[in-house]
Amino acid sequence: MRGFLIVGNKAVTKPFNLNDLAGSAGRMDIICRCIAQSLFISHGIRRDVEVYALLLGEPDPPKALKIVGSEVRYMAPDERNVGGIIRKALGLSVDEGWKRSSPGVYIARKSLRDLLDELSKDYSVVYLREDGLFVREVACKLKRPLFVLGDHMGLKEEDERTVMEYAKFVVSVSNLSLQADQCIVIVHYELDTCQSSRVS
Amino acid sequence: MRGFLIVGNKAVTKPFNLNDLAGSAGRMDIICRCIAQSLFISHGIRRDVEVYALLLGEPDPPKALKIVGSEVRYMAPDERNVGGIIRKALGLSVDEGWKRSSPGVYIARKSLRDLLDELSKDYSVVYLREDGLFVREVACKLKRPLFVLGDHMGLKEEDERTVMEYAKFVVSVSNLSLQADQCIVIVHYELDTCQSSRVS
Repeated sequence: MRGFLIVGNKAVTKPFNLNDLAGSAGRMDIICRCIAQSLFISHGIRRDVEVYALLLGEPDPPKALKIVGSEVRYMAPDERNVGGIIRKALGLSVDEGWKRSSPGVYIARKSLRDLLDELSKDYSVVYLREDGLFVREVACKLKRPLFVLGDHMGLKEEDERTVMEYAKFVVSVSNLSLQADQCIVIVHYELDTCQSSRVS
Repeated sequence: MRGFLIVGNKAVTKPFNLNDLAGSAGRMDIICRCIAQSLFISHGIRRDVEVYALLLGEPDPPKALKIVGSEVRYMAPDERNVGGIIRKALGLSVDEGWKRSSPGVYIARKSLRDLLDELSKDYSVVYLREDGLFVREVACKLKRPLFVLGDHMGLKEEDERTVMEYAKFVVSVSNLSLQADQCIVIVHYELDTCQSSRVS
């Protein structure tokens, strides 16, 4: 299993306009791309992946989404399609337990700490940050990793401290500052390469 | 310099509906993602990149787009924004010479062979195909590479033969079949890693 947890600092917590993902929806385009890059390969979905998105924007934060690769149906990799699935989930009333919105898609009222408490039981938390260990040097050692990463704003200091309480590794994917979805592609690539016969 | 050439087998050649990039625009969402992943890092654009997109869909193929990283202004990485820039270019009448549509964005009437004739003078053509040499083993040897890749349909046999006339390398990024934009992220990552001090 591989998990990804993306923090959307401004991603709105009510249904939004699909024509303005990058604007009034609080950079929901980033969340859409991160979900798509976590799940999709060409003509298929990675069944061994779970993606979590923590939405911290107005008017009703925090809300958390869970998307389970092995259960997902009817999802396409374009931003608008993923956005529509998120919007539908945001139409539900939420409480602390996961509520199913569409196949493989769940929503709940959870904070960052709630999520990490829950996920650190099953996953080894890995914080993706630019000053971490180079992913290539650690990828093959990671067992059931959950990669935590921020959107274009990164993580707030307070949230970073919370993540560091749970993190087993701090890992970097590049000397350049990359977009969150690009980091996800690279993490998958390094883990795939570990699993293939190409690198011993 | 790094170049990317994406072939959109069904990508339409007239202005299209931004609300239906993945449908009636002929999987223009893929072209948008490829352009964005070629150009963007976090909070910036790669100035040393050129992206070419060959649009082969109805009603007026072929048309080619050129986006020059060092000249681009006013572009955001979300699909809708890139789609708007493509749509504007498709509103121009085209001939064989590049015509400027917006800063750093050009359009012309060019076939795959026209493009490769022009670009192989400046670039070393690299065909991305699943049975190629593993990118990690060749990335550091590539000088001024132009990576050619297909959309969700790959390349038609005839187009593949044309590319192979020009290709200096055939390179693969994964044992898995990945999406075109994911291949671009991985190519950048391997080239960036070559240029960094992390790998000698």
